[in-house]
Amino acid sequence: MSATIHRLDNREPSLEPMLQLVAGDMNAVNQVILDRMQSQIPLIPELAGHLIAGGGKRMRPMLTLASARLIGYTGTRHHRLAASVEFIHTATLLHDDVVDGSDMRRGKRAANLIWGNPASVLVGDFLFSRSFELMVEDGSLKVLKILSNASAVIAEGEVNQLTAARRIDLGEDRYLDIINAKTAALFAAACRISAVVAERSEGEEAALDAYGRNLGIAFQLVDDAIDYVSDAGTMGKDAGDDFREGKMTLPVILAYARGDAEDRRFWKDAVEGRRASDEDFAHAIDLVRKTRSVDDTLARARHYGQRAIDAIGGFANGKAKDAMIEAVEFAVARAY
Amino acid sequence: MSATIHRLDNREPSLEPMLQLVAGDMNAVNQVILDRMQSQIPLIPELAGHLIAGGGKRMRPMLTLASARLIGYTGTRHHRLAASVEFIHTATLLHDDVVDGSDMRRGKRAANLIWGNPASVLVGDFLFSRSFELMVEDGSLKVLKILSNASAVIAEGEVNQLTAARRIDLGEDRYLDIINAKTAALFAAACRISAVVAERSEGEEAALDAYGRNLGIAFQLVDDAIDYVSDAGTMGKDAGDDFREGKMTLPVILAYARGDAEDRRFWKDAVEGRRASDEDFAHAIDLVRKTRSVDDTLARARHYGQRAIDAIGGFANGKAKDAMIEAVEFAVARAY
Repeated sequence: MSATIHRLDNREPSLEPMLQLVAGDMNAVNQVILDRMQSQIPLIPELAGHLIAGGGKRMRPMLTLASARLIGYTGTRHHRLAASVEFIHTATLLHDDVVDGSDMRRGKRAANLIWGNPASVLVGDFLFSRSFELMVEDGSLKVLKILSNASAVIAEGEVNQLTAARRIDLGEDRYLDIINAKTAALFAAACRISAVVAERSEGEEAALDAYGRNLGIAFQLVDDAIDYVSDAGTMGKDAGDDFREGKMTLPVILAYARGDAEDRRFWKDAVEGRRASDEDFAHAIDLVRKTRSVDDTLARARHYGQRAIDAIGGFANGKAKDAMIEAVEFAVARAY
Repeated sequence: MSATIHRLDNREPSLEPMLQLVAGDMNAVNQVILDRMQSQIPLIPELAGHLIAGGGKRMRPMLTLASARLIGYTGTRHHRLAASVEFIHTATLLHDDVVDGSDMRRGKRAANLIWGNPASVLVGDFLFSRSFELMVEDGSLKVLKILSNASAVIAEGEVNQLTAARRIDLGEDRYLDIINAKTAALFAAACRISAVVAERSEGEEAALDAYGRNLGIAFQLVDDAIDYVSDAGTMGKDAGDDFREGKMTLPVILAYARGDAEDRRFWKDAVEGRRASDEDFAHAIDLVRKTRSVDDTLARARHYGQRAIDAIGGFANGKAKDAMIEAVEFAVARAY
């Protein structure tokens, strides 16, 4: 199987070109991140560092930096703002782990299991406040507006997801609303703010926003698909985690919609927490295969990936654009 | 017993004059609060409304409004900002209840007991984001700086308190650092921002900041004293709550410092969670009386209260100033 996007060379799509494109800028961003997660209170850098230093691809700040390259921005304001975006994301992860009761995060024990839920909640709050301090230092009200709005949308999406939890009748539309809010909104904002600091047109802002948003949706769809195919370790996440938590993701939504009465009973039981054994997960994999639900989740991801690529079609060709296109290809190919 | 500040009339000090002073403005603030806690996701206004509509004196927005009166500001920008301050405070309360595992808040069941910790964490995040959106709408980078800094300081203070939990050797200085951060910083910011929107001098800003900060410390000290004197119901908080949670507050710090070896053993055991029965609490009350620890906690509160009053000495006399002075007197007299 391959993505709908064909590469001229036969190389597997990779994040490498984007990593190289932004390597110099990313050093500067990492410096800001390390500087600004410090505090007189030792627990703060300790806990934040566990997550921030401990891996993760810095996908969102990377998108800020790549977008700046795409539009030829030559300043340095985006370094601070990229760090701000990463702080928002890290705060969200810390709170997510408390909300989900996760065991693992980025291949390590989740912070709340080591330091407890209270510390994760409060250090998340600290990083969130710090992210706003960084934006205020930059001084663009427009950037502040974009990122404060994204933050509110993320929180709203998380609450939406919480109230949708264990509801087998969720449906694809509401699921898309949720991932749009909890994942794609920050991807979109991360890209858009580069156009703001570079003082580009509304049209260019919107194009970068669309690139980030569609990539974010594709990214989340693939993440949700991976839970039904991958071995433990991929993205630091165990296969079957979502299943065992009764999480409503697109593979489940499709398998439920396409299943017979018995299958539907199984999914309803699973989502409501009455089926979470290894045998149940094996049966879930069978049903998902039978209904082609993972394949079609990935097909949806490719649709959004293609939209992301087309959104930046109008920008000048070159290294930055190639890297951003390949990043999308990589995102949608992760599950293979 | 009476506060060190003497009134000419014999009336008990009351919040009433301040409530009357700001009544009209507070209606406008309440409208902003109600409008802006709305969301497509019903759980958000439901949970937020439980706390926001459900009482609380709106102390912090009231201080923003009273400060604006004191300096003769006649605009309306402070309405939105006062709502923003209340949202920060509400977000903090929601997260605090998760951190502390509180049963009661403002005389009602804590939100996390009704809707669960995940909902409290996420709705807190939403309100926090919303508070920044309100600031961005106002558009003052200076206000954004003051409030984002206050937010970071609050979160830092909460983490400091968490790491100080159950440490009998905390000491008065570190305790003051903690309440300065977790309570007084937002009181100070709430007052200061009125001077910013009114475009007053740095000196006037600093005077209002000092009023709020010292009042905040006094307020927290009295709150901590009340736990060792009041009947259930005062401030919606049960007497003995802090004791049973092993919270390090000034009455404990003083009683420990002033006690004999046996008393110290008792306090250490209590703070480390080995003494939390009703008999233990009765014994704690005895020790606190014997060492005059509540009385002296209240004496400290009067000291900060006096500083708050003197901080606004330079402003014109009148209704606003009288109300702000009486609010301090009320705050320090609450425990009698």
